[in-house]
Amino acid sequence: MKDGTGDIHEMMQDMGRRARAAADVLAYTPAEAKRAALEAAADAILDAEAEILAANAADLDAATNLTSAMTDRLKLDTGRIASMSDGVRAIAAQQDPVGAVIAEWDQPSGLRIRRVRTPLGVVGVIYESRPNVTADAGALCLKAGNAVILRGGSESTRSSAAIHDALVQGLKAAGLPADAIQRVPTTDRAAVGEMLTLSEYIDVIVPRGGRSLVGRVQAEARVPVFAHLEGICHIYVDKDVDPEMALDVVLNAKTRRTGICGAVECLLVHEDAAELGQKIVDALMAAGVDVRAEGLSGSAPATEEDWGKEYLDMKIAARLVPDIDASIAHIRRYGSSHTEAILTADDAAADLFFARLDSAILLRNASTQFADGGEFGMGAEIGIATGKMHARGPVGAEQLTSFKYLVTGDGTVRP
Amino acid sequence: MKDGTGDIHEMMQDMGRRARAAADVLAYTPAEAKRAALEAAADAILDAEAEILAANAADLDAATNLTSAMTDRLKLDTGRIASMSDGVRAIAAQQDPVGAVIAEWDQPSGLRIRRVRTPLGVVGVIYESRPNVTADAGALCLKAGNAVILRGGSESTRSSAAIHDALVQGLKAAGLPADAIQRVPTTDRAAVGEMLTLSEYIDVIVPRGGRSLVGRVQAEARVPVFAHLEGICHIYVDKDVDPEMALDVVLNAKTRRTGICGAVECLLVHEDAAELGQKIVDALMAAGVDVRAEGLSGSAPATEEDWGKEYLDMKIAARLVPDIDASIAHIRRYGSSHTEAILTADDAAADLFFARLDSAILLRNASTQFADGGEFGMGAEIGIATGKMHARGPVGAEQLTSFKYLVTGDGTVRP
Repeated sequence: MKDGTGDIHEMMQDMGRRARAAADVLAYTPAEAKRAALEAAADAILDAEAEILAANAADLDAATNLTSAMTDRLKLDTGRIASMSDGVRAIAAQQDPVGAVIAEWDQPSGLRIRRVRTPLGVVGVIYESRPNVTADAGALCLKAGNAVILRGGSESTRSSAAIHDALVQGLKAAGLPADAIQRVPTTDRAAVGEMLTLSEYIDVIVPRGGRSLVGRVQAEARVPVFAHLEGICHIYVDKDVDPEMALDVVLNAKTRRTGICGAVECLLVHEDAAELGQKIVDALMAAGVDVRAEGLSGSAPATEEDWGKEYLDMKIAARLVPDIDASIAHIRRYGSSHTEAILTADDAAADLFFARLDSAILLRNASTQFADGGEFGMGAEIGIATGKMHARGPVGAEQLTSFKYLVTGDGTVRP
Repeated sequence: MKDGTGDIHEMMQDMGRRARAAADVLAYTPAEAKRAALEAAADAILDAEAEILAANAADLDAATNLTSAMTDRLKLDTGRIASMSDGVRAIAAQQDPVGAVIAEWDQPSGLRIRRVRTPLGVVGVIYESRPNVTADAGALCLKAGNAVILRGGSESTRSSAAIHDALVQGLKAAGLPADAIQRVPTTDRAAVGEMLTLSEYIDVIVPRGGRSLVGRVQAEARVPVFAHLEGICHIYVDKDVDPEMALDVVLNAKTRRTGICGAVECLLVHEDAAELGQKIVDALMAAGVDVRAEGLSGSAPATEEDWGKEYLDMKIAARLVPDIDASIAHIRRYGSSHTEAILTADDAAADLFFARLDSAILLRNASTQFADGGEFGMGAEIGIATGKMHARGPVGAEQLTSFKYLVTGDGTVRP
């Protein structure tokens, strides 16, 4: 296809129209048909392993000056393809959220009112280099009865196309419209701009990526957005805390996996616990973590740039604070409303931390690495939403739905 | 104050900053303090009756070429002031939504997860001539722990200012920040544009008004919007229906009150029930309703302009349709996703109507005039949301909240 902007405008309008038509069908597609489509897609992903690996190899060849972290996000192998397929199968096995009665009550007027889950309609997902998002996002949106338009990163375009082909095979095998899961075929960035203004056809945009992508989306979007800001997660070590526990939790939160959004990026320590704080910093450095510290002795002194920074690496900022209020103030100023933890034996301190902070996820005496839909018992997720509208925290199939009121009477009129 | 646009920009920035600061306090203000503030405000409204009536008289004097409907919406009297005060008192008496545990469960990891209601933050309400919205919206936002910036119609500016003064008295009496309920003091429309782009401080905009206002808001907003489209409500009379019931419900839905968003604006009749349809049309005309009909004999033939029209008056469009699918297609094309009703004795027809339409409220054998927060048992509402994001249907205090996850462990780390 030509990549002239006019053509892209036409192409996106057409994709939008087709997505809306598919969504109208999905809105009353039985759970069993969606389940069958997802199981068929999971099989198709396994069957297409050779094609997917070849496409991924071509993506890796074409990619220039990727960091090792970017390469790791982009690269697929047999194991990752198998877990992608397992992920789709797990979504197929989840309970269907659509049609569920969320609440039901009777009114004195004689009306019976039911609040029932419905699909959102058409979801636009804009993401970066991880090709597996193609499978996760496509499967989750279908599970929730939504049509989806996927726009992946240019580095992963061949891999995503191969995975998308498998998803469409699943749709066709179950007799569902192929337009239920569409993929923007061009890597031209103008297509993103078109998606962000396609309010006639797209009900919500889900951006999955770094600050620059999310920033552009929030600035340009004419469509509602489920903001997924980066995970600038903080842990505050209170003065009244079990030292062993604090050491274990902080090490786990930083080093278990550094590349996920739930990895802790900043450690705040009450000055009365400075000795423990230093022990933790020493243990982090012994584990190979680069610690940018203020008030504690780390690998290097912290600078203003270290506060509010998402390293996604074996790096952490650390700061001694005079009290819990200072830790709350620091988090309010530098956090991204994603996930923060307090480590304390003091219930009053935990209550204050929970009350005064408004991040999507607040933990007490637990690792920030639990910020994950699976760990919350919600199954697969499309991301951790940091906004306050509609979806917040892990965004699984249920968060990708809306609702309507179904009201029955027997000739009931209003006095 | 000067009305230069630069000044208005500064003024709105300042109001936004102050609203955010007030919201930070309200986020952890005890339910009792909010209740006390609302009860004091209800008293203050009664005490200020003379001032409010004087301001309202000045608004009516200043108003030029208002329709009688607009004058009716603008005019206040002792009874309306009393019910405004009662409305605020009723909101005070409602259960406080903030802090409520929506869900609570344990995970195999040992984590206990609670999903807890939180305020949204700062709400911007943009409305037209009804001055009572000042009291309703201000009280509902406060109940939900939100700071609010109110921007009422220019015709009602004096009335709204007097009502706002009473609300602020209530805040002060309870020791809450006066900035919790702010009112835009200028009638310069530039202030609306500023509100719509105040994304740094305003979390959501609630437009209350006609198509032009809502259209402008949706086009210009850089802030999430709870869309409140007009109520283009439809009633479909199926072929298998109790004639008496159909007659009663349609007459109630049109004539009980014509000025509310739940008033029916279009009657669709299955052609096999044409005789009943004509009876209903005759009864509507006998009741003084101007019926624009197609396939039935009304006051005048319907034209394309009559479909999807919100009359808010003793007028209705009526159309004979070949079957239920045609009624669904008509509603999907001309409706506003607000409220539609099916009158039928056939469960299969009702199920189809409920499944294929996605309006916020769908009724069976009941009057569309029940589209009201009070009639749903939700108490006062700021409006009926027709969008699918976050809030839908009647928007009461509970719909003006968000949530966060509070997670507790005992040194729990992720394997």
